[in-house]
Amino acid sequence: MERVAVIGSSMTQFGQRDGWILDLLAEAGLACLGDAGVDAADVEHLYVSNMASGEFEGQTGIMNALAQDIDATPAYTQRIDQTSSSGGAGIYAAWQSVASGASDMTLLVGGEKMTHRTTGESTDVIASLTHPVEYKQGVTLPSFAGLTARHYLERFDAPRESLGKVAVKNHANGVHNPHAQFQKEVDLETVLESPIVADPLRLYDFCPITDGSAALMLCPESVAQEYTDEYAVITGIDGATDTHVVHEREDPTIMGGVVESGEGAYEMSGRGPDDIDVAELHDMFTILEFLQMEGLGFAEHGEAWKLVEEGETERDGELPINTSGGLKSKGHPLGASGVAQGVEIYEQLVGEAGDRQVEAEVGLCCNVGGFGNCVITTIMEAAQ
Amino acid sequence: MERVAVIGSSMTQFGQRDGWILDLLAEAGLACLGDAGVDAADVEHLYVSNMASGEFEGQTGIMNALAQDIDATPAYTQRIDQTSSSGGAGIYAAWQSVASGASDMTLLVGGEKMTHRTTGESTDVIASLTHPVEYKQGVTLPSFAGLTARHYLERFDAPRESLGKVAVKNHANGVHNPHAQFQKEVDLETVLESPIVADPLRLYDFCPITDGSAALMLCPESVAQEYTDEYAVITGIDGATDTHVVHEREDPTIMGGVVESGEGAYEMSGRGPDDIDVAELHDMFTILEFLQMEGLGFAEHGEAWKLVEEGETERDGELPINTSGGLKSKGHPLGASGVAQGVEIYEQLVGEAGDRQVEAEVGLCCNVGGFGNCVITTIMEAAQ
Repeated sequence: MERVAVIGSSMTQFGQRDGWILDLLAEAGLACLGDAGVDAADVEHLYVSNMASGEFEGQTGIMNALAQDIDATPAYTQRIDQTSSSGGAGIYAAWQSVASGASDMTLLVGGEKMTHRTTGESTDVIASLTHPVEYKQGVTLPSFAGLTARHYLERFDAPRESLGKVAVKNHANGVHNPHAQFQKEVDLETVLESPIVADPLRLYDFCPITDGSAALMLCPESVAQEYTDEYAVITGIDGATDTHVVHEREDPTIMGGVVESGEGAYEMSGRGPDDIDVAELHDMFTILEFLQMEGLGFAEHGEAWKLVEEGETERDGELPINTSGGLKSKGHPLGASGVAQGVEIYEQLVGEAGDRQVEAEVGLCCNVGGFGNCVITTIMEAAQ
Repeated sequence: MERVAVIGSSMTQFGQRDGWILDLLAEAGLACLGDAGVDAADVEHLYVSNMASGEFEGQTGIMNALAQDIDATPAYTQRIDQTSSSGGAGIYAAWQSVASGASDMTLLVGGEKMTHRTTGESTDVIASLTHPVEYKQGVTLPSFAGLTARHYLERFDAPRESLGKVAVKNHANGVHNPHAQFQKEVDLETVLESPIVADPLRLYDFCPITDGSAALMLCPESVAQEYTDEYAVITGIDGATDTHVVHEREDPTIMGGVVESGEGAYEMSGRGPDDIDVAELHDMFTILEFLQMEGLGFAEHGEAWKLVEEGETERDGELPINTSGGLKSKGHPLGASGVAQGVEIYEQLVGEAGDRQVEAEVGLCCNVGGFGNCVITTIMEAAQ
């Protein structure tokens, strides 16, 4: 079977945006067509990663509106929802569309418009993805994160500062990402003294609520070569669920979906943790970066915090993590986030990451839905 | 590339149901596992076709809840939304998952829970799939149907009775479907004298609002043969959009998405209209059955009504259409409907259609999203 290539990317400004979801999707979609040098008429499948345009804006059918807006009719369209990992699920769906032979040119656009709603309203929409038992008890994702962080720090004797350093690192990277919502450094003191949200986690342990869109263009490798010499190839991709009821998991510091999807992606690509040169992890909460580092084999269980303390995951470290700024500084427009992870890895691999550029031949992104309820891991490599 | 097989199906009772979406999905999912003789642990991908659980019930993440409810964790999950053709899009997504090699066993469950909301609320959720320009002017899908029907009848000099006969036929078929919402015959007089909804269309020209779920099990043909000798194969499948703004179409009696997706499915399967032995068409409104018959080449443009008048599409006719009872009598739980079309064709092909059984080696289903905004056509054949 032919390999699936990525030949173009785009990302809108993330942050508080005017307009609405259709404006954001069209902006990213058109920019990606331009970046890839692909005619809208040549798009065969158009996939939209979006969790909740109906709930946030009362508008559905956005994939069909987008097809018309960017002149891609009669391209086949579909909306992909995997909650906060809708973007990663979109990469998987787009990969499947090409690998199955259904499409020779798939444009994936992820996006969400959230900031016009209050933080409470947005948190409630997001919380509706949890199990009804938990949802009806008022459990939100931030509260899961607080409980998990407390347990992790105590059990592994990890300093509270190590979590703060994830935020500091990702903000430092975000300074160099012109599309990030927050392009500013924060120091450790600011993080550690910010208001408590879910003890022990504080405001700067959380990603913001964000509007934005991001896009990727996928096609068979033979088609890619008609357009460019500079492309990337998806060599491994897999997704997996964990118990939907979070409190039923045996060990709250192990996300089964991360482990399973990582193993699947490694096996498919023939790669292992040591082969990864750069990674985008789903740092919706700082503690999640630890859990993914461990679940993906970048660190032993309970020891991710040591690598962070040692600076190994900074941009000049052994394994740069979240060179884009992560969800933490870039922002987290639900359906866009997983696609934007793919955009960062693609741009690192083809040498288009500007001031954030690191040396990388193999990259990985991990997109977490809910509190690890479903996770997608993607391994991408520079074309050889 | 190996062919993709269907090895099991299920359908809940359609109608006004107690419980909520998760109950319906689990009921159909478990029944399909049983029908296929597949262990939940062997399901690799679990896809849920659903348009709007968030809008109808305030609950999202239903695909992850379902994985746990039917014991399929850590199967990969995704929700597929293509508005009223979410079910057909689910068949396409499930086909892609198997054809790409990503999954050797994909369970597709479509469902929607709607009847707890008022008809006005449900219609408004559905109307949110139309283009904002139309939506904000108060256009709903029934009003498009009325306008189109008036145009069709006048332009092609078709008798109003021919539309009514679609409803009469589909109700007659539904009598033999134990899962249909309305298992009762209606006579032409009842249809023609029912209350006007969108002139010239009357109550019996419309499908009802319905709760329900349906499921299909897909796998590579070589895997299918480990389970059964009685299976079907998806030999052609394609989807396509038309202008999202309905009034921009050149000819309101031609649905471009039907034509394009049909041509794609015919080309892929090497079949043509004359090869189809039985078809499920998306009769959300009676007029849609005419447009699909013509778009798919079963009748010349403007002449589908003649075949209906001649009884050719009845169960003992040349090309039985909607042997299941169609959306008209079976009901239309959005995300379930396209899957239920696939269930009917599968059951006809493997000889499990009971009192509805016709002789069929090749079947087709056509699932229409919105007012033809995106359409998926699937051709299935009995395994040889």
